[in-house]
Amino acid sequence: MKNLSEIRVEIDKIDNELIELFKKRMDCAKEVGIYKKENNIPVLNEGRENEILDSVAEKGGVYGSHARLLYSNIMELSRALQHTIVGSGKKLREDILKASSNIETDNIKVAYQGIKGANGHEAALRLFPNGATVSCKTFGDVFEAVDKGEVSCGVLPVENSNAGSVSTVYDLILKHRFYIIGALDLPIDYCLGGLKQSEFSDIEKVWSHPQAISQCSDYIAKHNFDSVPCSNTAIAARDVINEKRLNVAAICSYMAAKEYGLKILDDHLQDNKENTTRFIVISKKLYISENANKISLCFSLPHVTGSLYSLLCRFNSLGLNLTKIESRPRKDKEFEYLFYLDFSGNVHSDNVIDLISQLSEEMPEFSFLGNYCEL
Amino acid sequence: MKNLSEIRVEIDKIDNELIELFKKRMDCAKEVGIYKKENNIPVLNEGRENEILDSVAEKGGVYGSHARLLYSNIMELSRALQHTIVGSGKKLREDILKASSNIETDNIKVAYQGIKGANGHEAALRLFPNGATVSCKTFGDVFEAVDKGEVSCGVLPVENSNAGSVSTVYDLILKHRFYIIGALDLPIDYCLGGLKQSEFSDIEKVWSHPQAISQCSDYIAKHNFDSVPCSNTAIAARDVINEKRLNVAAICSYMAAKEYGLKILDDHLQDNKENTTRFIVISKKLYISENANKISLCFSLPHVTGSLYSLLCRFNSLGLNLTKIESRPRKDKEFEYLFYLDFSGNVHSDNVIDLISQLSEEMPEFSFLGNYCEL
Repeated sequence: MKNLSEIRVEIDKIDNELIELFKKRMDCAKEVGIYKKENNIPVLNEGRENEILDSVAEKGGVYGSHARLLYSNIMELSRALQHTIVGSGKKLREDILKASSNIETDNIKVAYQGIKGANGHEAALRLFPNGATVSCKTFGDVFEAVDKGEVSCGVLPVENSNAGSVSTVYDLILKHRFYIIGALDLPIDYCLGGLKQSEFSDIEKVWSHPQAISQCSDYIAKHNFDSVPCSNTAIAARDVINEKRLNVAAICSYMAAKEYGLKILDDHLQDNKENTTRFIVISKKLYISENANKISLCFSLPHVTGSLYSLLCRFNSLGLNLTKIESRPRKDKEFEYLFYLDFSGNVHSDNVIDLISQLSEEMPEFSFLGNYCEL
Repeated sequence: MKNLSEIRVEIDKIDNELIELFKKRMDCAKEVGIYKKENNIPVLNEGRENEILDSVAEKGGVYGSHARLLYSNIMELSRALQHTIVGSGKKLREDILKASSNIETDNIKVAYQGIKGANGHEAALRLFPNGATVSCKTFGDVFEAVDKGEVSCGVLPVENSNAGSVSTVYDLILKHRFYIIGALDLPIDYCLGGLKQSEFSDIEKVWSHPQAISQCSDYIAKHNFDSVPCSNTAIAARDVINEKRLNVAAICSYMAAKEYGLKILDDHLQDNKENTTRFIVISKKLYISENANKISLCFSLPHVTGSLYSLLCRFNSLGLNLTKIESRPRKDKEFEYLFYLDFSGNVHSDNVIDLISQLSEEMPEFSFLGNYCEL
């Protein structure tokens, strides 16, 4: 039997030959690309690809499934090469290149969901310190306000949210064909806010949103408080002031406590001290700032082995880092999944704009949601 | 210039040679595996792998990044082969093989979060028609009840949930080292429930959980109802009965309406008619039924290009279909992500148990959460 270094010598020899063949194959893919461009032939030829995959799977013998997998990557890489030669995805490429670089932030009007002092209000003020904020009742109302031009943009939570999940907001973005032009991770920090005349020892009941109550459940249990749900934490703060009961306090943000004139009776109530809520800025018009560093996409993939894997091959071959991926079964089409994907990058890099443009042409349902700066 | 069929003849020739080399290389990987097994050498040799990747990237010339990507796959496939030869992941393999096949469902006690008539209660009854249900105040209380043996298992929502997100429940599963032994997609369907003496035309106010209010916002706006938040939909139903006001109705499930004796004044209020909430069954002990068809995993990956891609290579090479993937940044470690992944399969298939066992050995933080049947 051979020892390890003998086997490795053999492996190195195989690798040298294999790489040379791979290079030749990529050269051929390039030639095909040039031919397709000159003759106006579409890049994707599924029939030919499947033929090759079936053939290598057969020739692979005991390694048939491995050979098929290897070739699914070679196909992806070849196709990407050809798309670059052909210059696919012209429409999206043009849209992106003509995007304005920065939204005018002085005296801008920004809509958020909730009342004054709500997390959305705080996020809007942090994102637009010189802006005027407009309160809306629902997520849908924020979109309507942007759509009608009553405000320039809207600020909405997409994670850890009180009034809905990421899907609700993403669904609305897709429905309205809006863009994401900014993002902020807002630290979630609750205080106990009571009347000026109240002391901590007076408190028996706490009012708050059910999610805040659940996020402070250890604290509430420790102090044996009675918890009463409200529709949100800012409303809880406002109601404490209006109802004037010495034994009642709100679990709310510091901003809400300040907004409604509550006295802070205790700090940092939440069980998990590192909680944040992600907010995004939505806009009807696409803005991409010079220093944008995050790209959001949404697309649909069929439930076949490897569809996601093949897609990631494209990102990986360009050295692009995903920062978020989330799948959701589609309600309208069985065996299809909707994917939300974020990755680090800027459309001013050639490989990034090439990739997005190509995917927009290759994938039947593909949305570029935006390229923005994360605060 | 060559035409398309001439280039393709060349490609086919290259492919024939390439596949032969690939097979030889896999044979070598096998030999390495046997050597490693006999000499008790660990499968993963990161130094050697990186050396090969750097070398092929250099030799690849203009196709350097493509060659590196191709080889990252070859490495994954070789490593998988060697793990199978070495028999990696013995501990998890043994745990899985000694799992009981079915939990005894007659007279079983099952905990859920919420009061009678809550969605959790309905899910528990659908999953265990012959069981006794136990109401708990919080998600944490459900876990405590299971931990103390007061109940055999717990039923908890992991999507679309009222009192928390998928992360909360998954975090608790990981903290308690529990297993998922079942799952159910419960259709969410709201009715308008009022007093026996009320007519639809009497209703002016609706009571419900904020999420249900938001899910029925079109309906509420259309009828110009005033909405009042409650901590959950079942509590809203109970309160309508207790408070006896003719002009108030609850937005709640049909089960809650029945439970508290409400008259159904209107049907299917939700804006999205295809809403479901996913519930899972958690247990201290691992049960895997013969017909289990879904596997849940949780693991951590570093924020490096391709770590997820490499992992998916392993699933793809075995023809395994992902049905869910979700990433979440880790609060405790920068540039690390936690992944929740579901895929279709049963541990009684060799390739499935091989893969899970291998990953449990290869990945520093890897949890097999369960293999169960989806209802």
